[in-house]
Amino acid sequence: MIYGMHAIIEAIDAGKEIDKIIMKNDMQGRLSHDLFKAIEGRNIPIMRVPVERLDRITKKNHQGVIAFTIPVAYQHIEDIIPTLYEDGKAPFIIVLDGITDVRNFGAIARTCECAGVHAIVIPEKNSASINADAIKTSAGALLKIPVCREKNLTNAIKFLKNSGLKIVATSDKADDNYTDISYTDALAIVMGAEDIGISIENQRLCDTIVKIPIVGTISSLNVSVATGIMAYEVLKQRL
Amino acid sequence: MIYGMHAIIEAIDAGKEIDKIIMKNDMQGRLSHDLFKAIEGRNIPIMRVPVERLDRITKKNHQGVIAFTIPVAYQHIEDIIPTLYEDGKAPFIIVLDGITDVRNFGAIARTCECAGVHAIVIPEKNSASINADAIKTSAGALLKIPVCREKNLTNAIKFLKNSGLKIVATSDKADDNYTDISYTDALAIVMGAEDIGISIENQRLCDTIVKIPIVGTISSLNVSVATGIMAYEVLKQRL
Repeated sequence: MIYGMHAIIEAIDAGKEIDKIIMKNDMQGRLSHDLFKAIEGRNIPIMRVPVERLDRITKKNHQGVIAFTIPVAYQHIEDIIPTLYEDGKAPFIIVLDGITDVRNFGAIARTCECAGVHAIVIPEKNSASINADAIKTSAGALLKIPVCREKNLTNAIKFLKNSGLKIVATSDKADDNYTDISYTDALAIVMGAEDIGISIENQRLCDTIVKIPIVGTISSLNVSVATGIMAYEVLKQRL
Repeated sequence: MIYGMHAIIEAIDAGKEIDKIIMKNDMQGRLSHDLFKAIEGRNIPIMRVPVERLDRITKKNHQGVIAFTIPVAYQHIEDIIPTLYEDGKAPFIIVLDGITDVRNFGAIARTCECAGVHAIVIPEKNSASINADAIKTSAGALLKIPVCREKNLTNAIKFLKNSGLKIVATSDKADDNYTDISYTDALAIVMGAEDIGISIENQRLCDTIVKIPIVGTISSLNVSVATGIMAYEVLKQRL
């Protein structure tokens, strides 16, 4: 836990992972404005509560606000890829472009851990982050599989491409079926949000775009199921 | 909506699908006891509210209790299989044994609809049922794909077996990999709850038990992801 407005703003600016913030009901003024500015775009929930509840949580001088932190360290993809190559492994990375739903994020992490994915890459903004709900939905997988949170997702994909990984994305508009291509070499699969998919910029970096066939009349699969289908096609080819 | 204790109990006994029941805070006595008995094992949530809230919902004589119904008709697997054969199709059925989580049920229905599953079979008790949450999670698929709710799931599986369907289940203890067998002929896949799996009785009816390989250190996949992986292996072989 972190107490007090200044300490919390500093922690957020330093990139510390905050699960949620509890703030007394009548908190106002410049400092709370600074806090709201600091958490902009970070998906950190703020709960307004009576000050007595804060007093029950800690006897320390909380100044009306307490933040709960998550003991998870994000990693960087630049540190992970070389190690995989050194270990003689063909990297298998999942990149999530705009997956903001915490349950989908947790479910994807669980599947990735089962399917032997080496790391998950997410952007700093416009993404679910590792919080208590995500860890729970992941059945603990988020405490095991490396998650890389990158300032610029496009640059991260460029890095993967320059490191020799084939970049594959899924789209219902693609011609090739997802089972038609080989996934045995170094590989990153980019999964996009269910509604808007992968950004144009990131699509342009892809070596191949494949489709998962839909024979029903509903437009798309849930993204965590789609990721499971892709990840298990890769695992099948690699086993 | 259905108003009044007697009408609601009758509707439940007649197998009508209830989404939720709203009851005034201080409702007591024999009739409410009968209601609780009627909904036993049926996963129908009851909300206690101030009587004023009931009065706002309807001006009719609600006697302190209102039930919201779901306009969905369950089907019977005995009616579906012959029609599929008549249409020259190789039936592809998903049987859910003990899937009680409404979100998993909805997610599975969504995937099944995308993968061309002809029907989902669930038991009357120990199962999620079609309610508003399930329909929402299914992205509407539960309004399109036939769901058969059978009194006795074992008998339903026996019927499928006698109708010429190959019965396949998944288990992490199986020897065969899920990709090793053929799914092109008439087929039912039985998916069990994540914790306890498929009942022994139903396992005995299976022609083949296969495993989805897990290379990580987490014990199992989410059941909706596992169903997606199975359903798409079937679709791939059939396309």
